[in-house]
Amino acid sequence: LNHRPWVSLWAVPKTIDSILRGISQVCFADNPLSGLLILLGLLLGDVTAGLAALACSLTAIITALIFRQPDAAISSGITNFSAVLVGTVITSLYPNVCYQPVSAPVYGYMIAGAAFSVCLLSGLAAILAPTKLPPFTLPFNIATCIVFICLRGRGLVGVPPDEAAGTPDGDAEVEWDQVFVGWAMSVGQVYALESLVCSCLTLVGLFLYSPLLVVFAMGGALVSTVTALAVSSAPYAGVYAGVWGYNGFLSAGSLAIFMVPSPRIFLLALVNAFFTTFLHAALVPSFAQNQLPVFTFPFCISSLLFLAMAGAGGMGSVRWTSRLPR
Amino acid sequence: LNHRPWVSLWAVPKTIDSILRGISQVCFADNPLSGLLILLGLLLGDVTAGLAALACSLTAIITALIFRQPDAAISSGITNFSAVLVGTVITSLYPNVCYQPVSAPVYGYMIAGAAFSVCLLSGLAAILAPTKLPPFTLPFNIATCIVFICLRGRGLVGVPPDEAAGTPDGDAEVEWDQVFVGWAMSVGQVYALESLVCSCLTLVGLFLYSPLLVVFAMGGALVSTVTALAVSSAPYAGVYAGVWGYNGFLSAGSLAIFMVPSPRIFLLALVNAFFTTFLHAALVPSFAQNQLPVFTFPFCISSLLFLAMAGAGGMGSVRWTSRLPR
Amino acid sequence: LNHRPWVSLWAVPKTIDSILRGISQVCFADNPLSGLLILLGLLLGDVTAGLAALACSLTAIITALIFRQPDAAISSGITNFSAVLVGTVITSLYPNVCYQPVSAPVYGYMIAGAAFSVCLLSGLAAILAPTKLPPFTLPFNIATCIVFICLRGRGLVGVPPDEAAGTPDGDAEVEWDQVFVGWAMSVGQVYALESLVCSCLTLVGLFLYSPLLVVFAMGGALVSTVTALAVSSAPYAGVYAGVWGYNGFLSAGSLAIFMVPSPRIFLLALVNAFFTTFLHAALVPSFAQNQLPVFTFPFCISSLLFLAMAGAGGMGSVRWTSRLPR
Repeated sequence: LNHRPWVSLWAVPKTIDSILRGISQVCFADNPLSGLLILLGLLLGDVTAGLAALACSLTAIITALIFRQPDAAISSGITNFSAVLVGTVITSLYPNVCYQPVSAPVYGYMIAGAAFSVCLLSGLAAILAPTKLPPFTLPFNIATCIVFICLRGRGLVGVPPDEAAGTPDGDAEVEWDQVFVGWAMSVGQVYALESLVCSCLTLVGLFLYSPLLVVFAMGGALVSTVTALAVSSAPYAGVYAGVWGYNGFLSAGSLAIFMVPSPRIFLLALVNAFFTTFLHAALVPSFAQNQLPVFTFPFCISSLLFLAMAGAGGMGSVRWTSRLPR
Repeated sequence: LNHRPWVSLWAVPKTIDSILRGISQVCFADNPLSGLLILLGLLLGDVTAGLAALACSLTAIITALIFRQPDAAISSGITNFSAVLVGTVITSLYPNVCYQPVSAPVYGYMIAGAAFSVCLLSGLAAILAPTKLPPFTLPFNIATCIVFICLRGRGLVGVPPDEAAGTPDGDAEVEWDQVFVGWAMSVGQVYALESLVCSCLTLVGLFLYSPLLVVFAMGGALVSTVTALAVSSAPYAGVYAGVWGYNGFLSAGSLAIFMVPSPRIFLLALVNAFFTTFLHAALVPSFAQNQLPVFTFPFCISSLLFLAMAGAGGMGSVRWTSRLPR
Repeated sequence: LNHRPWVSLWAVPKTIDSILRGISQVCFADNPLSGLLILLGLLLGDVTAGLAALACSLTAIITALIFRQPDAAISSGITNFSAVLVGTVITSLYPNVCYQPVSAPVYGYMIAGAAFSVCLLSGLAAILAPTKLPPFTLPFNIATCIVFICLRGRGLVGVPPDEAAGTPDGDAEVEWDQVFVGWAMSVGQVYALESLVCSCLTLVGLFLYSPLLVVFAMGGALVSTVTALAVSSAPYAGVYAGVWGYNGFLSAGSLAIFMVPSPRIFLLALVNAFFTTFLHAALVPSFAQNQLPVFTFPFCISSLLFLAMAGAGGMGSVRWTSRLPR
């Protein structure tokens, strides 16, 4: 499929393959079957988010073709995985961030954000090239922050709900069964979906690609979910919803894929998840000044540092250079 | 002129040549005649801003000579174009940012800012060297932010005007003739001057250097001015004053000069201007927390990314390495 | 000592040597005797801070050994000097930042911060490698900001004191003898200690290592302390306490060690201290939004730029590459 030209009848299967791979690339898997299972999870979790992911992926592929991005990057879904997140996260979080249901104009900004993410990926990859580090989901993070603030600047924002209604009831007891649920929820929260069905289908999809990736990522999600209890205060609704676990899921998972796994790399992956959660807590107040969540910035920043650390030392040979867009 | 030593009678013509080239380098032109026309525009638009640009340029040249900056960078005005902006922007915006007329001490801080801009350029160029990207006007942006906050820290700040007096009258209708005026105003706003005379003389100066640069830059200014209507809310006084267009003017223009122009590069230049305006809107709330405008940060950040993207792909050979300070 | 293995009886003297060198590396000295004198100063200034420095250094060495950091970096104390500052600064500033005495849980977060600083150093050094610049104390700055915000997120924070009690008495007169005291205090403030004894012992320790380092650093501290009067407003309590001088102390000192000293480098070191103080004033409002001081961020950012500038030009051959961790 990789050797077929884009301007031909092969365009349709190539596009579908690229979109499905892009959906799985969010979690570092390069496999259309994994992508299909995750897409099913997205559609079952929130049909709008799933369709938005498809629309944004298509936008990204067209943008990449116009600006002649490397064929290998398009075919493997690397140019469009940030767009997948632009789609699911904007549709899923817009009601929380802007206090009103998603309306037609919002989709226009979302499509622009998906196109931006392709340019951001290409630019950031070139800037990071001397360090041999990948930009991870930074293109998604930057594009989504920009889109949300522009939506607010345009006035596409409702009235914030009465804060008093949501006052914490001061129940400081940690409910450990809920922490366990939060751990499982973390997987779906990678796509900003609070859905156990989506979590399970994603895990099955990733297991098909690499069981070791699932072990690393779920280990990281557990570390992050528990660490969250030490860096935030009661009530722990966010912890139970998986909001504190998805960055650690991605942080630990990234080391399983971008490095040759070993016991020492596994330990480093858990430390990465631990640090990611501290960074998450530290970024919350600054992002709150723009009334934004931290998205996956903690994962990106932390994993850039830990991947640089892992690549510099004697902890296992680096194998991720072949996974860079170019 | 380039082969004459600085410590000789040639110092005077060399300095004048460098200053004029520096004024035109703000808009990517390396031509003393362009610089002379723009200087005339500055003096006609705001005589204080024009004289401040000259004083800051002279400061920058002296600083560059003391710290032995490369002769080619001084002669072509690259070491002093950020200082030109330090001069015009601080004198022009100080009354808006600090709510009182420019007083004598302010000029002292301005001169320090001009000297800083030379050090910042040299340092940033060295740090960006592995990526082969130029620092654009980041030295001006950083130095000017620092100077404004220090002036405020020193207490050289007046009382903010009564906000109630400037309440928007809620007229949400877009006045398209005013949008057109704002497009033309964008050129002078590069130097923070709201003057059609300055805009026209600048365009004539740039046209003498490169007609294609004018086409790219004015295309970008138009895209940005119109996009501003989609990422901000009424009243659109800023749009009509050209405040939303100058970043796009520079963003699109940068690709005309740092890349070999082609239809695809022209399209990328317009997308760069489009993204620049989204980024502009996204940065406004964060800069407002320090009561500062965004200066040309949106142009710098966006164009670094798009230039990196353009240089990485197959969209035309890069030719800008020869334009770097060293 | 460098050629002895870590897993042997040599571990104890090697650890002590590394800890003492790390304490002196904060001020760019690589000498266990200097470190011993500074440690004495720390213990005399604030015994808790001194013990915290030792505990954090030990944590850093263990972390570095687990993740196989280069032996040369561990032996010379480079992997642990950021941990020294994590220890002294958190214990010393916690009561000011979080409005209550240090309690047992705080030490747990401090130890985590010390471990993080090793990972941050390794990651940042690898990311900065293409620019050949060292990360300075950025690992300390980042780890400490994160720890303080996490402590606040966890609720380990008291009630802020009544601001009214500390109203400035409007005495705008500069007390020059106090400015002189503030200059001397700057040295101890590198470790966040307000103690003349600590300052003196530190200076003696540094003098043993390099008299020229003391000349550069004290010159920078003087420039910064005086410049602070121009970028802040009365009352000048912070200037008199040395809070405005320590960044300039480090900024100027860094150029003495990382470059071959010359009169032009000395001038550049003073300009670096001057710029550092402007940057310090400019960062204060942004850090205040997180209720944090600026730590040594102004030194790090400014000196990265000025070191890049010095290394690029013809101002003296660079000799610091041999001092990088790898």
